[in-house]
Amino acid sequence: MPSEFALIDRFFRRPVHHTILGVGDDGALLRPAPGMELAISTDMLVAGTHFLPDTDPEALGWKTLAVNVSDLAAMGAQPRWALLALALPEVDEAWLAAFARGLFDCADTFGIDLIGGDTTRGPLNLCVTLCGEVPAGQALRRSGARPGDDVWVSGQPGRASLGLACLQGRARLAPAYEADCLAALHRPQPRVALGLALRGLASAAIDISDGLLADLGHILEQSGVSATLHLACMPGAALAACADAQLARDCLLAGGDDYELLFTAPPTKRESIEAAGSAMGIGLIRIGEIGGAGAGSLVLLDARGQSLAPGRRGYDHFSGEREAGSALGVIAAGAADESR
Amino acid sequence: MPSEFALIDRFFRRPVHHTILGVGDDGALLRPAPGMELAISTDMLVAGTHFLPDTDPEALGWKTLAVNVSDLAAMGAQPRWALLALALPEVDEAWLAAFARGLFDCADTFGIDLIGGDTTRGPLNLCVTLCGEVPAGQALRRSGARPGDDVWVSGQPGRASLGLACLQGRARLAPAYEADCLAALHRPQPRVALGLALRGLASAAIDISDGLLADLGHILEQSGVSATLHLACMPGAALAACADAQLARDCLLAGGDDYELLFTAPPTKRESIEAAGSAMGIGLIRIGEIGGAGAGSLVLLDARGQSLAPGRRGYDHFSGEREAGSALGVIAAGAADESR
Repeated sequence: MPSEFALIDRFFRRPVHHTILGVGDDGALLRPAPGMELAISTDMLVAGTHFLPDTDPEALGWKTLAVNVSDLAAMGAQPRWALLALALPEVDEAWLAAFARGLFDCADTFGIDLIGGDTTRGPLNLCVTLCGEVPAGQALRRSGARPGDDVWVSGQPGRASLGLACLQGRARLAPAYEADCLAALHRPQPRVALGLALRGLASAAIDISDGLLADLGHILEQSGVSATLHLACMPGAALAACADAQLARDCLLAGGDDYELLFTAPPTKRESIEAAGSAMGIGLIRIGEIGGAGAGSLVLLDARGQSLAPGRRGYDHFSGEREAGSALGVIAAGAADESR
Repeated sequence: MPSEFALIDRFFRRPVHHTILGVGDDGALLRPAPGMELAISTDMLVAGTHFLPDTDPEALGWKTLAVNVSDLAAMGAQPRWALLALALPEVDEAWLAAFARGLFDCADTFGIDLIGGDTTRGPLNLCVTLCGEVPAGQALRRSGARPGDDVWVSGQPGRASLGLACLQGRARLAPAYEADCLAALHRPQPRVALGLALRGLASAAIDISDGLLADLGHILEQSGVSATLHLACMPGAALAACADAQLARDCLLAGGDDYELLFTAPPTKRESIEAAGSAMGIGLIRIGEIGGAGAGSLVLLDARGQSLAPGRRGYDHFSGEREAGSALGVIAAGAADESR
């Protein structure tokens, strides 16, 4: 059996492009460009909690890095440097080769150097720390939403959890949309370019990893504001494609494991935001408004303007189950943890 | 049961002192001081692999951060910012409170802000990423050892694995020394001040987490040099205190989980190094010399100048057992993984 050092050399040591010192020392060395702040985020993915043990390792390699890329996208930061700590129950070289292929595919896509990490034996656990750069003072935070701002969302939230529902036999979708949903589940496309474009436009931003309502809740709490959302304005593909309306709505509003951006911006920025979305080919939809009264409170209106009970907003690994009537299991929550 | 968000607020959110944005957003924001490079390291500790499941959580909190502090010490970097990702099988508030107490005790001791992380459910796993600062171009690397350099070690390597041997009933020591060894095992004191003092003096440095010989091996390989070590020059407390000479030697040379520094320096720096050690009250001992021929090769001489077979140099989580005759188990390796 190869040593852990041979494993690292073989699977995880690649040339670095913008790093002073990469894999192989007690630590790595890097330097943000002049005028830049460093944005940094870490996410831990656990077998059986965040992914099914038999998940395709190449897809898992992509996703392990992509969920962190999404966190930096939500900060408006350019991802640059990653560290990977992983615990493996055994050395399965084919698995590792495929995992590394997916990881480096994501790294190459987003211009990220893998600069270090740790390899050990234990129950399968994948922990990436990702550093990026953002011009000083321009990072998108959760705390900047102001009364009167629009609430926007990118893409089609709910696809990842619908994809999981398909895999588990709980949903039936048109084949083309099912493929879309499975791609969203297995190979999420973090919105880096959108995050960069939103610097100076958005007042607050977050990625939807815990579910749309839950993540909007984080913005509301940290900004000390409220919000009204309009179900009729929501991206409608999930609702249209799934015969089980309750499941579709649950996935849309609370599915989690989506890596779209939810953000707020003053109405004066609408044209610029729409232009940015068009230029990138990303659907950006206004789904509601920020209000002042009742910090943290969230009203969801149906097509007739009636208030809907939003139920549980998303997934929490420790508080227990989702709202009654939801059949989404823990795996549906994907990387739906608190990124602190 | 409290939510993961409440857990984070309660146990892991503290005021930050030198951080732009800490816990609570998609990522944290920081900025190295002008002229500084960022040194970054990550270590994953797994229950059953790196620590006994019933380890005192306060000691574990300290150690979880301390092993990363040691990596930065070996770079000559000043630790500054930490992220903690943890997987917990269940929420045990008393355990978490004690763990956080130990973690923040270490953070406060070394002036570290906890700036973010991740909390999720899964088999107990603790992953810290630590960032520090080092003046541009002054980091201590593994690759700088040159023929003619002295080989130095700090403190008393072997204590942590002797401490474990005591716990497991495999060794009997004098009570005072046993307490020393248990403290080294449970509450390692990373050599930050020494690492800072060695900037400009040491040609290469590493911390002894995999075992003295194994970690010297990393320096030899990366520097393309060889070394001769003299057993008679080694810090002798372990050998003197333990009746089982084979076990004591094994712990001294290959025990791992020590967080002393092993470093090389030209003979012209001897006085400065000794002065630094005296000023800090840290024993610094010359144990050998670097040679040119046979990159990576290591000769260990006994008191009569006879070559000893060093056996296996240290612990590797995947290649299997230690040298024949060693009774050290996997736990003895502590955080003895490859830091990449």
